[in-house]
Amino acid sequence: MAGPIDFYFDFSSPYGYVMSEKIDALAARAGREVRWHPILLGVVYKVTGGAPLPGLPLKGDYAKRDFPRTARFHDVSFKLPANFPIATQAAARAFYWLHDQDAALARRFAQAAYRAYFIDGTDISAPQAVVDVAQGLGVDGATLGSALADEAVKARLKAACETAIAAGVFGSPFIIIDGEPFWGVDRLPQIERWLERGSF
Amino acid sequence: MAGPIDFYFDFSSPYGYVMSEKIDALAARAGREVRWHPILLGVVYKVTGGAPLPGLPLKGDYAKRDFPRTARFHDVSFKLPANFPIATQAAARAFYWLHDQDAALARRFAQAAYRAYFIDGTDISAPQAVVDVAQGLGVDGATLGSALADEAVKARLKAACETAIAAGVFGSPFIIIDGEPFWGVDRLPQIERWLERGSF
Repeated sequence: MAGPIDFYFDFSSPYGYVMSEKIDALAARAGREVRWHPILLGVVYKVTGGAPLPGLPLKGDYAKRDFPRTARFHDVSFKLPANFPIATQAAARAFYWLHDQDAALARRFAQAAYRAYFIDGTDISAPQAVVDVAQGLGVDGATLGSALADEAVKARLKAACETAIAAGVFGSPFIIIDGEPFWGVDRLPQIERWLERGSF
Repeated sequence: MAGPIDFYFDFSSPYGYVMSEKIDALAARAGREVRWHPILLGVVYKVTGGAPLPGLPLKGDYAKRDFPRTARFHDVSFKLPANFPIATQAAARAFYWLHDQDAALARRFAQAAYRAYFIDGTDISAPQAVVDVAQGLGVDGATLGSALADEAVKARLKAACETAIAAGVFGSPFIIIDGEPFWGVDRLPQIERWLERGSF
């Protein structure tokens, strides 16, 4: 089997969400595994001087138009949540806590959390909303609820963000294949070609 | 004939250059005219708070890798010039001065100037280099050389930048079709679909 695909994303990123609906099928066709890595764009932006799209002059208005159009283009259900963007510490911590017990469950949780936010409009910045999503997958809510405030779990997410930045990650979605970086869901055609040919 | 395609670009923009090699053929297939509009990203960035890609932490390194890869992906010849990015006032002023006499000639000049910079590595920030490019198309060099320092020609470019910003343009390339904005050469698949279906 060829090497894994590293998929970095923030749970508040519309383009990350669209990628999350596409990357596993793409990888499966290429016989590759996907490793999902939620990160916090706020931490990344401290390094890059970036800022959330919606607040930027001109670019913000464009983004609000481009998010749903890009989702339609990829046949992905999408509705910009009333509360957007949001802090995603709770969702990302839940992911890593689950991941260290069951990677496949964490992957299902990530998809469910993204859909709760970008399809149902659930504000997943609230720890209770994150617990609810996980409970829907059979996770014990009380245990997860405590874990979200656990210092070790917080440190786990912090380390994941630092590792991502060290790998050159500065946005969401961000894909690394065979050491080659691809930023944005609009790099899907290049990712497909890379997976077909090894390089181009 | 369907409405025109407005194509905004900075002569120092690699992605703008790749778009310039693609947009006319795309438009022709759709029976549309392309209106080329060089702008100065430096003027736009004063409004948006943006900055040139190459100097940004992490993003700059990525961009230098993504420029040639994106050009290869689109089968466009490309070499990152030694002097990059550059000021493009001279090239943009030459374009508008030519345009107001002969729009088709201005279009040919734009393509020649882009290729001089991104294929041959000619530093087109120098007025003389711009004059040389235009002379290659049969333009009188001395007359153009004087025009580049003419206050009316400077004002023409300034007005073009202001008009672009008022239309929501904040990057290069930027395409507007039927009032719908598309930012980046990576929006080519969406542009193609828009041209085929009218909307999506």
